[in-house]
Amino acid sequence: MDAIETLQNLLKRLPGMGEKSAARLCYHLIRTDDSYNKALAEAISQLKEKIHPCPICGCYTEEEKCRYCTDTERDQTTLCIVEEPQDVLSIASSGAYNGLFHVLGGAINPLGGVGPENLSFPLLMKRINEGNFREIIIATNPTEEGDTTALYIRHLLKDKPEITLTRLASGLPIGGDLGYADKLTLARSMRGRIRL
Amino acid sequence: MDAIETLQNLLKRLPGMGEKSAARLCYHLIRTDDSYNKALAEAISQLKEKIHPCPICGCYTEEEKCRYCTDTERDQTTLCIVEEPQDVLSIASSGAYNGLFHVLGGAINPLGGVGPENLSFPLLMKRINEGNFREIIIATNPTEEGDTTALYIRHLLKDKPEITLTRLASGLPIGGDLGYADKLTLARSMRGRIRL
Repeated sequence: MDAIETLQNLLKRLPGMGEKSAARLCYHLIRTDDSYNKALAEAISQLKEKIHPCPICGCYTEEEKCRYCTDTERDQTTLCIVEEPQDVLSIASSGAYNGLFHVLGGAINPLGGVGPENLSFPLLMKRINEGNFREIIIATNPTEEGDTTALYIRHLLKDKPEITLTRLASGLPIGGDLGYADKLTLARSMRGRIRL
Repeated sequence: MDAIETLQNLLKRLPGMGEKSAARLCYHLIRTDDSYNKALAEAISQLKEKIHPCPICGCYTEEEKCRYCTDTERDQTTLCIVEEPQDVLSIASSGAYNGLFHVLGGAINPLGGVGPENLSFPLLMKRINEGNFREIIIATNPTEEGDTTALYIRHLLKDKPEITLTRLASGLPIGGDLGYADKLTLARSMRGRIRL
């Protein structure tokens, strides 16, 4: 097996990468500047050595603790619970949130073999019991699994009436078109309508 | 800039890779087995060191000469002219061709600044003059540039009536649908119709 085939076979294992895209990428890399290839190879090779989950919230960091957990400017009384580490970056970069985060590591999905015991609920409850949170925002995905997980969190916190529990709004995406919205999204945006 | 951002910025420079796909790929690589990342990094890093163009036909090879030029089982009297090195693999793996190849390195495109002097025509003419070809198949793309290049090759070979010059058939793709075919393709497939 030659160098082109080796690379193509490795690339084909990436998500969303078929036979043709792997070939296209491979031939693109043959034409690019070799310094780019070297930089890309180094970045891929070092990724998992440099990155690890923050021991407090579970998002990825290169430091001992992540930039959100160590930032005292952030509101220490609000906690946003997400499924995956990358969701932290999405919400942080939206600019609409300035509190702390907690990464569950997925959503409850009994058919997929993911139960509450596979997610970081013990760490979450420890943080909530020791912390001083006034609001907890459940930002799991608007899917069946995400909704199940949200209900489970509500159940976990039923003895803490002092904490306001909220869920991200579901509805039409900005810039979207009513004609292309699916029925469930339309129904949710109707039920969740707000007064102008 | 941390390891994730570094990798995302590098990935974004690949063709067909936007902000979201780069992030998705990056987080996928964080979750995969590190041995895969190391293998991928090595394959990317070594690619340009291992691969070079065959000095005879111009397709990519790791050996001194490519597997097609050195394969004496292949028909030495037929030459297939293609634009890019990856076209060689496409045609070879179709199983319908068993002759030799020649890679031009592109197609004539005056507006894009590619003239005949930028392509490997001198090498092609040397091969044709020294070789014993009975048929030359022009397999440039069915585009304006590919057609221009085909006409240019016909002009180059006008003093060699002993060589049959052919062009790959254009028409409807197998499994295609008349309703989705564009007018130019339909017109070509009509003009090139064959007797049943």
